[in-house]
Amino acid sequence: MIFPPAMNTLIDILRKLPGVGPKSAQRMALQLIQHDRTGAKQIAQAIDQALERIGSCEICRGLAEQTQCDICQSQSRDATVLCIVESAADMAVVEQVSIFKGRYFVLRGKLSPIDGIGPEELGIPLLVKRLEDENITELILATNTTVEGEATAHYLSELAKSQGVKTTRIAHGVPMGGELEFVDSSTLSQAFSGRRDY
Amino acid sequence: MIFPPAMNTLIDILRKLPGVGPKSAQRMALQLIQHDRTGAKQIAQAIDQALERIGSCEICRGLAEQTQCDICQSQSRDATVLCIVESAADMAVVEQVSIFKGRYFVLRGKLSPIDGIGPEELGIPLLVKRLEDENITELILATNTTVEGEATAHYLSELAKSQGVKTTRIAHGVPMGGELEFVDSSTLSQAFSGRRDY
Repeated sequence: MIFPPAMNTLIDILRKLPGVGPKSAQRMALQLIQHDRTGAKQIAQAIDQALERIGSCEICRGLAEQTQCDICQSQSRDATVLCIVESAADMAVVEQVSIFKGRYFVLRGKLSPIDGIGPEELGIPLLVKRLEDENITELILATNTTVEGEATAHYLSELAKSQGVKTTRIAHGVPMGGELEFVDSSTLSQAFSGRRDY
Repeated sequence: MIFPPAMNTLIDILRKLPGVGPKSAQRMALQLIQHDRTGAKQIAQAIDQALERIGSCEICRGLAEQTQCDICQSQSRDATVLCIVESAADMAVVEQVSIFKGRYFVLRGKLSPIDGIGPEELGIPLLVKRLEDENITELILATNTTVEGEATAHYLSELAKSQGVKTTRIAHGVPMGGELEFVDSSTLSQAFSGRRDY
């Protein structure tokens, strides 16, 4: 009654966006329909275009507009090192730092039997095939430090061992610029057990 | 380079939404394209439908799917009292409380000469016509208490006076459940100057 039906539908559906509650959804809908109809049109078009164009890279399972992504197609990347990440967003974060010059494999999730997510869902058969076919010598495990992320890392290290490939795990410890006083205890214990010669 | 072009376009364009910065836009885009393609399609469709269906009510300038909104068409609303609000969102807020049974006029802004917003842009000629044609006896000014909102209220009260229509302003004071200690000084001074017999 308060808003026309199409407006209520739009408000409801905008709540599908992560971090958007009823108030923000209403604010967004009003902004789009009352004040920025051009912008609204652009958003609808950009979503349609992205849905149409963006698929999955057949090599690394990252986002790609062709069958393969730019990184997998690039000749200048080190083909012997493979970094395993949970999501395309994690891949983007690593790329932004530009410290890593190898290639990627995107799990698009983490092992979680309770949600029915097993090796199949994470594309492990594809990964095994890469380990067999390509000349990969190191697997860098960059999954998150959640329980599932650690379990996934453990699973992958066992898998790599069976293929005779070395695995490494990115370092966990006190963030740069971070103060000991404000670091949680599990990070601090990681920092101590992972200490290096100085 | 990090994301495919269509993804970058989507991320940029999602930043047009109010309250969405670069990080949230990226999170939204990844969520839509990687994990919720059905939801993404629904959002694009809902935006298109809302743009197509929702226009402005020819009587009150609120949102409407027909030429007139439900409230203006309703026979059960008191046609002698008109509540003036700045936006359709404000109208929705008043409706949600259901204390007001009259009709509305939506300014879709507030007087702001510096932004080139004068009486024309706020639909004042339409309001004047309503005051002349309809049997309106009271104009409730519910514009915001910003400088522009107050200036708009003052302008409207002068206008109504020239048409012989009574104007009232919604009360401003300490919010219900609010504690004096935490009320700002201008609200408190409003609360004192607007005190009523008890």
